[in-house]
Order: sequence, then C-alpha cells, then structure tokens
Amino acid sequence: MTKIPVGVLGATGMVGQQYIALLNNHPWFEVRYAAASPKSAGKKYKDATDGRVHYPGVTESVGELVVGDANDVSAAVAAAKAGNCAFVFSALEMGKDEIRTLEDAYAAAGFPVISNASAHRWTADVPMLIAEVNHHHTDIITSQQKARGWDKGFIVVKPNCSIQSYTTPLYALIQEGYEIKRLIVSTLQAVSGAGYPGVPSLDMIDNIIPYIGGEEEKSELEPLKILGSIERAGANEAGLIKNAEYPKVSAHCNRIPANDGHTACVSVEFGAKKPSVEEVKKIWTKFRSLPQELKFPLAPERPIIVREENDRPQPKKDRDADKAMAVTVGRIRPCNVFDLRFVGLSHNTVRGAAGGGILNAELLKHKGFLG
Amino acid sequence: MTKIPVGVLGATGMVGQQYIALLNNHPWFEVRYAAASPKSAGKKYKDATDGRVHYPGVTESVGELVVGDANDVSAAVAAAKAGNCAFVFSALEMGKDEIRTLEDAYAAAGFPVISNASAHRWTADVPMLIAEVNHHHTDIITSQQKARGWDKGFIVVKPNCSIQSYTTPLYALIQEGYEIKRLIVSTLQAVSGAGYPGVPSLDMIDNIIPYIGGEEEKSELEPLKILGSIERAGANEAGLIKNAEYPKVSAHCNRIPANDGHTACVSVEFGAKKPSVEEVKKIWTKFRSLPQELKFPLAPERPIIVREENDRPQPKKDRDADKAMAVTVGRIRPCNVFDLRFVGLSHNTVRGAAGGGILNAELLKHKGFLG
Amino acid sequence: MTKIPVGVLGATGMVGQQYIALLNNHPWFEVRYAAASPKSAGKKYKDATDGRVHYPGVTESVGELVVGDANDVSAAVAAAKAGNCAFVFSALEMGKDEIRTLEDAYAAAGFPVISNASAHRWTADVPMLIAEVNHHHTDIITSQQKARGWDKGFIVVKPNCSIQSYTTPLYALIQEGYEIKRLIVSTLQAVSGAGYPGVPSLDMIDNIIPYIGGEEEKSELEPLKILGSIERAGANEAGLIKNAEYPKVSAHCNRIPANDGHTACVSVEFGAKKPSVEEVKKIWTKFRSLPQELKFPLAPERPIIVREENDRPQPKKDRDADKAMAVTVGRIRPCNVFDLRFVGLSHNTVRGAAGGGILNAELLKHKGFLG
Amino acid sequence: MTKIPVGVLGATGMVGQQYIALLNNHPWFEVRYAAASPKSAGKKYKDATDGRVHYPGVTESVGELVVGDANDVSAAVAAAKAGNCAFVFSALEMGKDEIRTLEDAYAAAGFPVISNASAHRWTADVPMLIAEVNHHHTDIITSQQKARGWDKGFIVVKPNCSIQSYTTPLYALIQEGYEIKRLIVSTLQAVSGAGYPGVPSLDMIDNIIPYIGGEEEKSELEPLKILGSIERAGANEAGLIKNAEYPKVSAHCNRIPANDGHTACVSVEFGAKKPSVEEVKKIWTKFRSLPQELKFPLAPERPIIVREENDRPQPKKDRDADKAMAVTVGRIRPCNVFDLRFVGLSHNTVRGAAGGGILNAELLKHKGFLG
Repeated sequence: MTKIPVGVLGATGMVGQQYIALLNNHPWFEVRYAAASPKSAGKKYKDATDGRVHYPGVTESVGELVVGDANDVSAAVAAAKAGNCAFVFSALEMGKDEIRTLEDAYAAAGFPVISNASAHRWTADVPMLIAEVNHHHTDIITSQQKARGWDKGFIVVKPNCSIQSYTTPLYALIQEGYEIKRLIVSTLQAVSGAGYPGVPSLDMIDNIIPYIGGEEEKSELEPLKILGSIERAGANEAGLIKNAEYPKVSAHCNRIPANDGHTACVSVEFGAKKPSVEEVKKIWTKFRSLPQELKFPLAPERPIIVREENDRPQPKKDRDADKAMAVTVGRIRPCNVFDLRFVGLSHNTVRGAAGGGILNAELLKHKGFLG
Repeated sequence: MTKIPVGVLGATGMVGQQYIALLNNHPWFEVRYAAASPKSAGKKYKDATDGRVHYPGVTESVGELVVGDANDVSAAVAAAKAGNCAFVFSALEMGKDEIRTLEDAYAAAGFPVISNASAHRWTADVPMLIAEVNHHHTDIITSQQKARGWDKGFIVVKPNCSIQSYTTPLYALIQEGYEIKRLIVSTLQAVSGAGYPGVPSLDMIDNIIPYIGGEEEKSELEPLKILGSIERAGANEAGLIKNAEYPKVSAHCNRIPANDGHTACVSVEFGAKKPSVEEVKKIWTKFRSLPQELKFPLAPERPIIVREENDRPQPKKDRDADKAMAVTVGRIRPCNVFDLRFVGLSHNTVRGAAGGGILNAELLKHKGFLG
Repeated sequence: MTKIPVGVLGATGMVGQQYIALLNNHPWFEVRYAAASPKSAGKKYKDATDGRVHYPGVTESVGELVVGDANDVSAAVAAAKAGNCAFVFSALEMGKDEIRTLEDAYAAAGFPVISNASAHRWTADVPMLIAEVNHHHTDIITSQQKARGWDKGFIVVKPNCSIQSYTTPLYALIQEGYEIKRLIVSTLQAVSGAGYPGVPSLDMIDNIIPYIGGEEEKSELEPLKILGSIERAGANEAGLIKNAEYPKVSAHCNRIPANDGHTACVSVEFGAKKPSVEEVKKIWTKFRSLPQELKFPLAPERPIIVREENDRPQPKKDRDADKAMAVTVGRIRPCNVFDLRFVGLSHNTVRGAAGGGILNAELLKHKGFLG
Repeated sequence: MTKIPVGVLGATGMVGQQYIALLNNHPWFEVRYAAASPKSAGKKYKDATDGRVHYPGVTESVGELVVGDANDVSAAVAAAKAGNCAFVFSALEMGKDEIRTLEDAYAAAGFPVISNASAHRWTADVPMLIAEVNHHHTDIITSQQKARGWDKGFIVVKPNCSIQSYTTPLYALIQEGYEIKRLIVSTLQAVSGAGYPGVPSLDMIDNIIPYIGGEEEKSELEPLKILGSIERAGANEAGLIKNAEYPKVSAHCNRIPANDGHTACVSVEFGAKKPSVEEVKKIWTKFRSLPQELKFPLAPERPIIVREENDRPQPKKDRDADKAMAVTVGRIRPCNVFDLRFVGLSHNTVRGAAGGGILNAELLKHKGFLG
C-alpha cells in the first residue's frame, strides 16, 4: 500500500517531535512535510531540533526534510501538489487566535487538519475526538465543510491530555447503562505536559505545584462535549455538537515531578443504578471499541488495563503500556462519599497528544475522510 | 525558670530526631533522657544516630546522652528519680500492639506519655489532640487515669500527619457555625512521612505512588474523633470520646517526590448554611485559638496562613512558615460539585509530628497535667 | 534452531529481573529455570516478583515458572536432567563468601556460571569479560576447569557497572597503539546500581551522595585485569590472568538521582604517543570487535557512539542507545592537565549488568563453551 | 550604629533576591534602594517579585520599596543624595558588555560597586575577592580609581560559584607552604546556579547534564587571579593583578538535580612538599582568616568544616552549615594518581553569590573603602 503523505505543523516542538517519532514506520502515513516557526524554517529538520530532541529516533527518518514556515499555507499547497501532503497534524504552539486563523486557512486550502491545539475545541461543529469514545462525532464533518464552504478540508481536534485517564473509563460505564452524575478529580500531571522548556527545575525539585493555568476548566468542560450528541438545527441541516449535561466535574490539577504520565484520583457519583466494584472491573477489562475491532495501527489492544495491585498505576511502570496508548486504572474501590473511587493513568504526550491525534487520523482514514 | 526534664522514646528514628532538634533551646522542656531500640541502647546519642542524622543540630545538645533501651521502663523510672524525666514523648517505631503495651507501661509507671504513634488513637478515653482544635479533650485525662488506676501517668496522642493541613481550617469554619457534611480530599504526601529508609528512590524518581498503606482510613476517621465530644456513661463517670457524625471523608493518598510537606486538595460540602469564598478567607485569616492566646512557645502566631497567589501553597515555599507550625492554605475557590475547594499544606514532621507533639505538651503543661 | 535452556540464579532481584526481561525472545537462549532466595522458592515467578517488578514484560514469558531455591544445587541438576538448564546466569545478592561457595558448587555440578557478582572477580583464573575488549580471556577456561577438576562447569564474571562507560573507549585507543598511563575519573551513578530498595528517596531528592561503598576500588582495579594477559606458570600449565600495569586510575564515585545510566567524567594521560581529538573521535566511531563482526544477538551495532553536541551524553537521552548496549561518549576535548577529557555513559543494568552477562554468554556459545 | 544605606542592582533576580534576604537585619547595611530591569521599574519590590520569590522573608523588609530602573544611574545618584545609597551590590543579569558599561557608570558616579557578575572578573585592576583568601587585593582599589579618574567609586567582583568549594581549602594548604601544581576537578552543580527559570525540569528529572556553558573555563582560570599578586608597572604606579602560575586546573562541570549546593570532587598534585592526610585535616580544621579574626557579621566561624563520615559532604545536609557561608570538605584521602583527593561543598547562592558579596562589603567597610 502506498502511504499517505502527511505534514506536521509545529513539528519542532515537544508534541511535534512526538508526532515525528510515532509516525516513524507507520503503516499508513508518512511524514513528507514539516513546518514550524519562521525561526526554524529553512533548516533541515535534524538541525532545527538540534540540542532539544526529546524522543529517541525522532530525527532519523525525516531529519533531512527542510522545515517550512507554518504560517505559509501556500508552501503546504505546493507540497500537496508535489504529492507530499494529503493532510496535516497541527501541533502548533502560538496564541489561540493565531492558531484558529491558521488552522482555518489550512482547512480552506483543502487540508484535513487533525489538531492537538485547544483553539478549536469549543467551535460547535468541530468534533473533539477520542477514537474509542465518540468516533461517531465525525458525522459532523460534512456539515462543517458545508457551513464554511470548504471542499476537502476540515478540522478535528483532540481533548486536553489531563482528561484522557478517566474519560474513556467513564464512557465505558455510561455505555453499559450507568449514568454518571458527578465527579471530583485530582490530577498529578507530568512536566512534559507543559512543553519545553516548560516548568523550571527549581519549581520541581523537592516540590509540587497545585496549579496549572486553564487546566481545571478544560478538565471540567471537555468531557461534556465528548459525551455530547450531534444536533441539527432544522431544515438547513447545520449541525452542532450539543454538550452532555452530565457529569458535573470538579478538578484539582497539580504539577508533579515526573517526566511523562498524568495520574488522576477520581471519585464518581452514579445515577440511580450503581455498579459494584466487580462489575466496574469487568466492564473495563472487556471494553473494546471501533479502533480495536478494526485493529487500527496505533490502537491499543485493550484501551483500559485494570491493575489489581494496591499501588498501581504508577507513571514509571504503566505509562508505556500497549504502545503508551492504553489507559491503566487501579485502586478501584467504593468511595466513602460518592459511589466509586479509582486512579487512572495515561501517557500525556502519546495517548494524550500525538498518539491520540494519529489514532484520530486512522479513524478518519477508515471513514473515508482522508481521500 | 527551671526546665522540666523530658525523655524521648524512639529518639533515634526520624521523628525522634525531629523531637530532639525542636527541643533544642525549648524554654520549658529539656531533653535529659533518650531511649531507643536495644540496638542503639548503650551508645551515645550522637553515635547512635551517626550517618543518619536528618535534622541539622540534632546531636549538638544531647549528643552525649547515653541512649537507654526503650523497652526498659525501669530505666526511665530511675531517670525520673535522678530528676531527668518528668514525662516522655513517644516516637516509637514498632508494631502497634508492642507500642500500646509499652506506652501503657510508661503511663502505669507514672509518666505522662505524649505520643506520636497511632497505637492508642482509637482508645476511647485517650484524647487525640490538635492543640488549636480540641484542647478541651484533655478533660478526659482524669477519667482515663481513674479507669486504669494510674496515678500521675496518662496517655495522649496526636493524629496522623496527613490530616493536619485541612482539619484546623475545617474546624475554624465549623466554629463559625458552618456545618461540614462531606469532604473529598486528595493528598500529595512527602517522603519523610514514611520515615527512614522509607520510600526507595527507584520509586520516586520520575514517579508518584497513588497509595500509602493505612493512610486513607486514618485520613477519613481521625477528624471525627478530633471533632467529637466527651461523654460520660452515667453514675460511674467513665468518660469516652464520642466521634462526630460529620464530615464524611473520602481520601485519596499519594506519595510524591518531595522531602517534607504534605499537600491536600480538598472539596467541601457544607450544610444548609454556606460561607462565601471571602468569608472563608476572613475566618481563616483571623482564626486564633488557645495556643495563640497563651503564646505557647511553639504555637504559630497565625495557625492558618492564607495565600492569594494562584500557585500556592507549595511544599518548598510554604512548609516552613512560622516555625513550620502553620498550615498554609490557598486556591480558595468555589467547587463545581460541592461548595468550596482549597489546597492546604503543612510540614509533616514538624506540625504533623514532633512539633505537634511538643505543642500538645505545652498545652498539658499549661493545664497542670505535667506537674 | 532449538534454544539452549538456561537458568537464572537470583532471578527475583533487580538484575535478575533484568536478565528475565532481556532474555524474552532471545534467539539462542530460553529461560527455563529460575532460582532465588528460600523466601521466594516455591512461588510462581510472577508472584515472587509481585509488587516489585521493575522492567516491563519481565513476568510475561516466565511468570508461570516455579521459583527454585538458589542454595539447592541439586534442584538445578534435576532441571538440567529435565532439559531445562544448560548453564546459569548468576545475579545472586548475598555475602561474597556465600556467592563464591555457591557459584563454585554450580560449576562443580557441571554448569557454566556466567556471573554478575563481584565474588570471583579477583580469582586469578576466572576471566572478567567485556565481550568487545578481552574476549580472548576465555582461553583460560580450560585451565580453570583442569585446576579445579571441573568437567563441563566453569565460571566467568563481568566487571562492575561503574567502569563500562570508559573501559571500552580506552581499550579502543590502546588497541590503536596509544598507551594510557593515568586516569582520573569522576562517576555520576544512577540509583538502580544499588538494587532495590537501595538508596532511600530522602537521600536522593534535592541531594547527591559523594560516596558508594567499594565502588572506587573496583573502578580502579578492574580495568587492570580486563586489560591484563593470560600467563602460564611453567610446565604444569596452570594459567592465570596477570594484571596490566597501566592505566593507574583514581576514581571519585557519586550517587545521583537518576534511575538508570552511569556517567563518567574522564581525564586521560597518554604515554609518549598522543592522539589528537579528531583521531580519538575517528578511532571510537569506527571501533568494532568480535561481537560486531559475528553479529551476536545482543551486540550493539556500534559499541561506541560519539556525540558531537555540547551537552551529551545524558542518562535520559543516551542510556538506551542501541538496545542500551552501546557506550555513548561526548565532550571529547583536550585536558588542561592531562591529555584528553571526555564523558562516557552506559546503561548500568543492561550494558553494565544483565545485558553484558548475556553478551558474554553469546561469546561463550560462539566459542563452543556452552556445549 | 547608623546603618549604611545600600542599593541592590538586579534586585528581582535570583541572586538579587538572595541579597535582599541576607541583608534583612544586617547589623551594618540596610537596603534602601533596589533597581532592576525596566519591566520591573516602578512597581513595589513585593509586586515585582510576586510569584517568583525564592527565598523566605525576601519581601518583608523592602517589599514597599519602589523598584528603580537599573539602567538609570541618575536615579541611584538621586537616591544617594536622599541618603538611601552609599554603595551598590550588582546582581545584574544582562550581556557582559552591558553589565561592564553599567557598572563602570555607577563607579564613575561615585558608587563602590560590589559585583556578582562575571563582566569585570578579568579586568586587570579589578580585584576578584574571596574575603578569606585574597583580602589584600583590595590594595589595588586606589590604583584602579586613579587610572580611571574615579573619585569614590570603584569596582570589586567575586569569583564564580563553582570554585568556592575548593579554592579556600587549597589556599589554606598553600599558605602552610604546600605548593599545588595541578588539579583535576569534577563539579556537581545545583540548578539554582543557572538562575530562574534556568534549567528545565524535563532536563533534570531522571537526568544529569555533563555541561555548563563557560563554567569550566571560569573554574580553571579564576583561581589563578585570586591566588595572584599585585604588581605595579614602574614609576607611574598603575597596578594590576598578575595571575599565579599554579595550579593548573582541569574542570568537568556537571548540572545535577539539587536545588542548592555545588559539590566538587578534587584530585590534587602537590609540589615537592606533600602533606599527609592528617596534616591536611589539621590545617583545614584550624584555618581562620581576617573575616574570622575581625568577626565580620556574615563570616562563618570556621571557614572550612571537616567531616569524617564516609558519605559527606552532601548538598542537603551540609550546604547550610554556618549561615551557608562555610565550605564543608570530606572524603579526604590519598589519590591513586595525584597526591590527595577530597570532596568540597558550598552553598552556591549564599557563599557562592550574595553571601560572598556581602562578606566582601564587610571587608571593604573594615578597610575604610565604604566611607
């Protein structure tokens, strides 16, 4: 099979590098275009990332690519004409407004944009996808294109890295008929979530920081869109995603001194129907979704791994489970105040960023959106 | 003023060393007797702690003391006769049953025992004291002595280090008439809480552990005894402490790679009457209690320090506030699910262990229980 | 090809687990026998390592093996008869004398013993092997067997993990005719080198320790045996390894808070003939030895990887290079006092322990010593 | 005694904050003027450092000062006229040329400038002072003033933080007649040495970096100026400091994950006369210099503290010794290659920066240079 040529916007940043690393030897996609800030443009990729490579093997396959200017959409169009870019991953790191404008421009120029940025997460007709949870939200893409007059281009986003470790487990329970009313969650988030240079070491040696700007709001709201439903506003068929009403979420987000892996301590209040601890374990253990059924290349075999040990999951021991794409849960037990307590963990720059984006691309490819 | 001579049991352990360090130059008390395991007995204190001193200055004042065998109560009695021991701090590290037996023996031999151990925390007529919160629980001591036939000896304990960062703030609100119904709390606890050698560095570099054995149970139950009331069972006047019914607590306890300082992320549900965020800040800022009014030597000037910065409290920056005896709170904001959220922090081996014990001794001295 | 069945002694320890992990899917060897302390004996391997598994995948392939008692040599003999053990890797963690006695017993019982322990490193007719450096020292094995009346059994050891990052690079220079006279080296060693539980986190958070018991002596002496030559004492043909006279080494060994990867800062004084920095880089870049020529399964393609960046090698970025079996060197520059300075790094539990042991087994297999 | 009013340039940076903290309650000096970059100018000091205060107590005493623009020398002159600034500490963080120009301007305007910056370290008539070592180098100040036509103003600097842990110990040996020929030193330097934000946590969690830009050159050269002598070039009496010829130093500088405290592993080659280990310990233990004799406020009682334990000095346990102004040495033993090995440690932001600067000011005050 000929691989689909793809571009990575923001390719020299932390998440951008992770995209490059994970797309090494991908069976469907091949990086043939890389763009970044004007500062990096014109350099070979391997030189542009020199001295700040975070992921082993990053530069091997695409090191010789000359980095384009991400602000220059016409360069991407030229790359497309040369057969080097059918769609783009966006790992742009700029102001939200700039990212929104730029992603729109790429979509208008005919590129499907699979974004890691938060700029378009609350655009009503842009789906925020976790491939195992709301794959059907891709149904809104046609409406999005029509509303904007875009031909082949469109935008999908993925949610914030902080919610990956509990949203899929909660969805698995909802899917089995257990309504989830309320949620109090404390996260212990790794420093790679702040990018590079990110958190100063003076703030992380012998310390934690009980605050991450904007993170609690995202953690509280994004699950509602992911669990929402597509609605169409009458005859004109303009679709939008209507948020779910539940669960109400209260989040405490903390930065802790681990390199990778976000942990969440979760207390859950169910509706009238409440599963037992054993039932929860059974549901999570057997949970599979579309990416598993269709064996997408980056899909974890088991999206949710249940650990029985007292002291798991731990970032160091569990973040890399199943290509770092699985969510590991443990300490599943009754809650003294609500109904259920558990700890969830996922790899924030893989499952929670570049890996999640690639899985979304695999989903879109399967659904025929990538041509 | 002649200082009261005191003994420290378990003097060579982590908390024991902290006792020795904090009693350096104490205006009321002077360490004149130190006991530890048979392994250390017979050595000079400075030699017994050689190579594992954790607190600067520990060995200066008492380094020349010959360590006694903590299991040998008669040695303490002899020390008392020699004028070297009026009461003891217990920082024993053994099995619970052994500690209980040993602390009973010291009390029976006439020593007030001010304990840091968990062995007697659930003995109904042993008060579990936070000096700013339930100082009136010392009223049960006479009943405890009578029931056991003890003359001058008795036992008081202090609660677990994990609850120090939120129990006093909650008490301050209750005292102002705000009933607290429910509490979901996630703690991020420093490694010194596990003693020495404690947590292996292989488990703490680039990692956290979402589990601390027994800690969640303690965090959930101990506040109920502290907030409880003394009851007397009829004519015979045998007293016991009856637990408060509220708050119901659900705790998630995590070990994180900081040396000292336990942090708690707290979500609070009030009863019908709910304070505003501003009211909460005002109550905490102005909170003072008996130790402050009477200016006990180790009492913090302000038991609760309110920080307005987004990213405080932090272990490194706030644990040492006011002799490491203050609780620092921050991020006081409404809760999306309950009523109020905040982050509390206290120094676990000072406020949460040796410092809290010494403050309890100061309280008992004031109340005339130390002769 | 039928795989050779092997046993691992000390299989539940840190290095033992690393052996199990690295032998997963090894093309020549298959773990069919695992022994450990009496405490673990009788349990399934996966249960014996429960809660302290350090290497992902460790328990998958051999989790169902019932752990034997490492002190019971007859059990290994029985396993050999059952076709489950042709030779053993020793990752025993006991006193030196006990290990020596036990390894002798296994050898006497007919087992080649490939040891990670330091017990036999200074036995004159036991070769201390780095497969790329002194593979010819296997020539002494026949003499060793004869002297002890052993038939098929024998013992080989590997050197300490602290010297792996500079011994191979130095050998590569010696081999090109550059005599090395003196060496001053400071190591920054990861905590996994101390096993588990090993170094307490209280000693590693916001700290380093400028001392590792016994490590400096090993670092100074072991290179001399590795670079030594086999001599035969006259007619009776009893062989022994005579130490090289040079280099004289002075080592400062430090423990630092990284999980894996030992770093060494090295200053080298050559003899009369001194290579230029460029020559050194060229020699190291092109260095290959027997394991590379014969493409042993665990041999790194390039035993020495030269990095040109200012700030490399780093444990996090370089320890895993080439299956964690390569030595990475950088900062190659003239020395202000001696002739040459450089920084070397290798993975201490792979290249410096289990991986190095397996590579030695591959060498011995190739030379016909494993039957 | 009326305190001398002082200004701090670069007062909001890491070292600047340390100056403010250490000058709290200083018996001779009082901060009455603080200047920083234009970005901070005009704010109250407590607001300008908001959210990045590193040292407890920093803002208490001078929090209300309005920060001046450090580039505006006339503002300092006005402050001087108002009685608020007799001399300045320079903790400026800019390009070297800019610092040099600015420090010159302050000196020309009549201010003694006591600098922490490296800009003027190699100006031949600017003394680089360690108060215990080369206090007599202040003799060059008059010549410096004459050569530049400065009246009361002048410039002195202090050396780099990396050399503090071994320069004073070496000087103590030289002073006793032991010539030091050569030195190979590896440093393990804390992250505060890089300022704030400084080293990203992604580079320090589970890692070390074997490189600090410019640090090795400083470590090798600065001791030679400090140990140098003042020479006068003939009749015109223009003085300059001539470097010592020895010791030749080769430095390997490493960044390690500790907050504060630089450690150095040192191998020393003496001249013909070589002290025994016991002699070295005796010399270091009894070493006292001018700051001790005259009991300067910030002078450590013992400039060099000798530890006998195997595993000391350690940053966490020893950096704060004697107001964080003492150098702690340990592991004093023969060197296999040179003559002597030892480990030295000093607090880099106190002894190695602000504390060292204040001690220099105390020296200059004593010598009458501060009016």
